[in-house]
Amino acid sequence: MKHRRKQHPTVCDLGEFGLIRELRGIVGPSGNSVVRGIGDDCAVLRGGNPRKYLLYTCDPVVEGIHYRPADPPRQVGWKAMARNLSDIAAMGGVPRWAVVSIGLRSSTGARWVKELYAGLHAAAKAFGCQIVGGDTTHVRREQFVVVALVGEVERSRITLRSGAKVGDSILVTGTLGGSLRGKHLSFTPRIHEARWLVARFPVHAMIDLSDGLSSDLHRLAEASPRSIAFEIDAAEIPISRAARGNLAAALRDGEDFELLFTLDPRHVTALRRKWARRFRTELTEIGRVVKSKQKVALIQRDGSRQPLTAAGYDHFAVS
Amino acid sequence: MKHRRKQHPTVCDLGEFGLIRELRGIVGPSGNSVVRGIGDDCAVLRGGNPRKYLLYTCDPVVEGIHYRPADPPRQVGWKAMARNLSDIAAMGGVPRWAVVSIGLRSSTGARWVKELYAGLHAAAKAFGCQIVGGDTTHVRREQFVVVALVGEVERSRITLRSGAKVGDSILVTGTLGGSLRGKHLSFTPRIHEARWLVARFPVHAMIDLSDGLSSDLHRLAEASPRSIAFEIDAAEIPISRAARGNLAAALRDGEDFELLFTLDPRHVTALRRKWARRFRTELTEIGRVVKSKQKVALIQRDGSRQPLTAAGYDHFAVS
Repeated sequence: MKHRRKQHPTVCDLGEFGLIRELRGIVGPSGNSVVRGIGDDCAVLRGGNPRKYLLYTCDPVVEGIHYRPADPPRQVGWKAMARNLSDIAAMGGVPRWAVVSIGLRSSTGARWVKELYAGLHAAAKAFGCQIVGGDTTHVRREQFVVVALVGEVERSRITLRSGAKVGDSILVTGTLGGSLRGKHLSFTPRIHEARWLVARFPVHAMIDLSDGLSSDLHRLAEASPRSIAFEIDAAEIPISRAARGNLAAALRDGEDFELLFTLDPRHVTALRRKWARRFRTELTEIGRVVKSKQKVALIQRDGSRQPLTAAGYDHFAVS
Repeated sequence: MKHRRKQHPTVCDLGEFGLIRELRGIVGPSGNSVVRGIGDDCAVLRGGNPRKYLLYTCDPVVEGIHYRPADPPRQVGWKAMARNLSDIAAMGGVPRWAVVSIGLRSSTGARWVKELYAGLHAAAKAFGCQIVGGDTTHVRREQFVVVALVGEVERSRITLRSGAKVGDSILVTGTLGGSLRGKHLSFTPRIHEARWLVARFPVHAMIDLSDGLSSDLHRLAEASPRSIAFEIDAAEIPISRAARGNLAAALRDGEDFELLFTLDPRHVTALRRKWARRFRTELTEIGRVVKSKQKVALIQRDGSRQPLTAAGYDHFAVS
């Protein structure tokens, strides 16, 4: 069986990262209009405006995977839109237009769909985005909602995953872990925070935390030059109340939808002072960008340094 | 039961048109940047270029609905992309950038996914479009592929559903009916034909045939001013070989992905002559835009005039 699986690998064998690598090969090099294609939070495109880039992203929400059948449809709609808004936030951008594809069982109540749509619309409207089209289709089993979103960002303010520099401080908004206890359906995408940030501070690299702090640090590392590594302090990680003091959960759990970014440490004091005046959301300095072959590391409270895998601290602890 | 269904209608009770009407109400009026929102083949947006509009569309393809599990994945990918390209063609536009969301069972072979992607890429590349991003997710049952597409069109050349004028000729490309026998997986979106057309002739209204000639004529009628009606001649409908001489199939069957458009009859002779020199695809004048309360009518071979419902000739015949 093992031999056979090697010859005919499944989606599961390859994993999401492996699959994306394979598919990127099929798509080939990008055209002139594409500043960044597959591999950042959004695609970055040269539209008609010489001072701005278009941002373009698309994220699916599937019943039984991203929400439970009994979850309130308004929250499901909110989540489906907010996930995409969070990708725009990660690039420092403003969301503009969304299209929505929905797969529905024919037995689903019209009220359920209207509530779903009300949630989609509420999230879009809260951040100045407009739903301009889409389509519905029939499914027999799992319902799904796919939102595609186009945004804009000033060319001078865009934040990519790839910009981290040795010596940078690493910061994170909000608190981490335990999102599945509720936050994942009602989180606030950090559009306002991101826009405020990129207008005032030279952010070097940014990503939104969708797969968990450990995983997403690895994504920053993969997008960075070879010698660049990320080092975070166990004592500094802001653990959410929902994670109940569990550091492993804060490192591993997905769907936090907070912002993780790096900037020159000389800006950190001013940033923290101004941030505290403007936002109630936490802002925490959790580590620094260093020169090392070990791409992501965790500094324990006793000062010891341990590699942190993409699967998080938990996984590392048992390996 | 009937009473209960009225109080709590399902998606099935409302139908796709009813649902879209309801959802449009939730989304509310469009902002300044939105020339056309929900209700045409694509949304039409004011991007940064003062001479062009952005076009934006999104279409799902679901296993068991739009393709069978055993269908070749390369063709499934081609179809998923080409459906969206066809929407861009209907507006006279050029496709630019696509994002793709795919729902996959974990048991699906990596080769299947690569073939699917090869089909997506082949269709995009054939029409100058680039896949710039997307996401994959896990599903337990039905796999799906959602493509969202952004295109462009010169503001002076855009073709909407709403532009038909009394006296216009109605024309259709290709032949109709029986698409499910194979064409639906391998059709050529009429991008080249549409671009050629809008550069040379003042097309008044255009739509791509996705739901069947009868249904899509009703969509043109709904988008037109009140007194405008569409009249087609039974003797002129170009029935495809796959439909085996069955007029009802040519009127009713979906997924033809041909172009249906109207223009001033004085251009028809020149158009047909130049078209024949440039394309091998058929072009047929099938009727005319008239002033009538009966929105869509079929003129039989004996000259009698019959209303044509959105469900097509078949449905009408038995009612």
